Amino acid sequence: MKLVRYGRPGKEKPGMVDADGVLRDLSGVVADIGPEQLSPRGLARLAKLKADRLPAVRGRPRMGVPFSGATKFVAIGLNYSDHAAETGNPVPKEPVVFHKTLSSMQGATDEIMLPKGSVKTDWEVELGIVIGTRARHVTRKAALDHVAGYVVVNDVSEREWQMEHGPTWDKGKGFDTFGPVGPWLVTRDEVPNPQRLSMWLDVNGEPRQRGSTRTMVFDCATLIACVSRLMTLNPGDIITTGTPPGVGTGMKPPQFLKPGDVVSLGIEGLGEQRSPVVKFRL
Amino acid sequence: MKLVRYGRPGKEKPGMVDADGVLRDLSGVVADIGPEQLSPRGLARLAKLKADRLPAVRGRPRMGVPFSGATKFVAIGLNYSDHAAETGNPVPKEPVVFHKTLSSMQGATDEIMLPKGSVKTDWEVELGIVIGTRARHVTRKAALDHVAGYVVVNDVSEREWQMEHGPTWDKGKGFDTFGPVGPWLVTRDEVPNPQRLSMWLDVNGEPRQRGSTRTMVFDCATLIACVSRLMTLNPGDIITTGTPPGVGTGMKPPQFLKPGDVVSLGIEGLGEQRSPVVKFRL
Repeated sequence: MKLVRYGRPGKEKPGMVDADGVLRDLSGVVADIGPEQLSPRGLARLAKLKADRLPAVRGRPRMGVPFSGATKFVAIGLNYSDHAAETGNPVPKEPVVFHKTLSSMQGATDEIMLPKGSVKTDWEVELGIVIGTRARHVTRKAALDHVAGYVVVNDVSEREWQMEHGPTWDKGKGFDTFGPVGPWLVTRDEVPNPQRLSMWLDVNGEPRQRGSTRTMVFDCATLIACVSRLMTLNPGDIITTGTPPGVGTGMKPPQFLKPGDVVSLGIEGLGEQRSPVVKFRL
Repeated sequence: MKLVRYGRPGKEKPGMVDADGVLRDLSGVVADIGPEQLSPRGLARLAKLKADRLPAVRGRPRMGVPFSGATKFVAIGLNYSDHAAETGNPVPKEPVVFHKTLSSMQGATDEIMLPKGSVKTDWEVELGIVIGTRARHVTRKAALDHVAGYVVVNDVSEREWQMEHGPTWDKGKGFDTFGPVGPWLVTRDEVPNPQRLSMWLDVNGEPRQRGSTRTMVFDCATLIACVSRLMTLNPGDIITTGTPPGVGTGMKPPQFLKPGDVVSLGIEGLGEQRSPVVKFRL
């Protein structure tokens, strides 16, 4: 299934996109796409619905974050060997873990706002894993059983705040609008192998990132197992798994986002984002 | 006011501790101590209550986290010059920002569980700031107007995971049980100067940390102003502001927590915590 939350910010309704690409309203069936609906039981219930009997939604409403109830937005750094190289870092021996803020999350076509004074705001197309079943010290073998589904994430990053303002990365990763997620949450059953997904990102239609989850240093199962040893993962929590080569900071000379740019990105089977970049405003 | 949430984990009721130290039930007045109650309007409404007319709570129930609804648990590192020195770090030129997980938060007498295999779990008494009014790009001068109140925090830290497993600190800071908060949320009006609070921490009754918020490198107002430029702070969000000297990693030789230890800590006017340390269990 392709689950969505559509409508105005803060007023999103649950929905699904059917096999013909038609948006169907789920608000007569569930109140939201949240932790309860992401559980195995919740997903099984939704899977029994006949999509063509659900009301079709008219027009082209905004897509919000396709699920609610996240209590953490874990991010993995330098998880593609070529990306580590382009940023001048060695390939890590274990996953690099940091946090993005929940307040950075937004929909797939919402505006990315540059932080005040920013000249180094960069893009990162990433595969996001959404948890459906509580995970604590899970094995690598069992890890994917804890997944509700997958999403496209843009791990927007301000490099000056990330690298030049102290020993942690978190300052550059959590600005408002820095976490576009979606458009859809594609349930696990429709993603038989999360390590075989092509991914891309363009800026103003020019190719920037081209990659595949095939070249992850640590695969999704390993990441879930690792993170579940550091913290309990709850339904609705999200792990974004790192980015392939082609970020702005790795270009020669480096290039970054400016007002008026449009960032478009997608992952095979998971849909596309299209985020206009706007200047800072209070 | 001293606001609390008391009762079994996940079933906490709202309450307040009156001037005589009697716990009063607020569940007939509000559903929770959450973002709505922490707002200026919510706090004003609670302040009008006559505490002696509220039902007294019998016995000595567990104190949970004294507020709900946090969407971020921001932490500041190396914010006391003597503590920076004891850890071998220079005094930072700007606040060091990282994140603790929301899932690490627990009550003031709950058990601290050592992570699997941990031999370097350490203590950090800290002043926590709880936001009552949304803060985005606020000035230092206006910053404290955005505070609902203050809490005692133990920023429990696993030093091996913090320092020896990659470039970020976050791995060592977010384990389950690593964020005891409370017992009370003391509203801002009862803390006229958050930079004049003595603080202490003992392990098994032996003095470990003795300090005062007076020696913070960056004061509370500066921290709020700084963080509010990096992310929007919402009611219920918490910033923990760094620890004074006396952590285990700074002792010669270093000392860390082991099962059976009891960590007790407090801050002037904000109450005390008492956390038994237990070994890892699945």
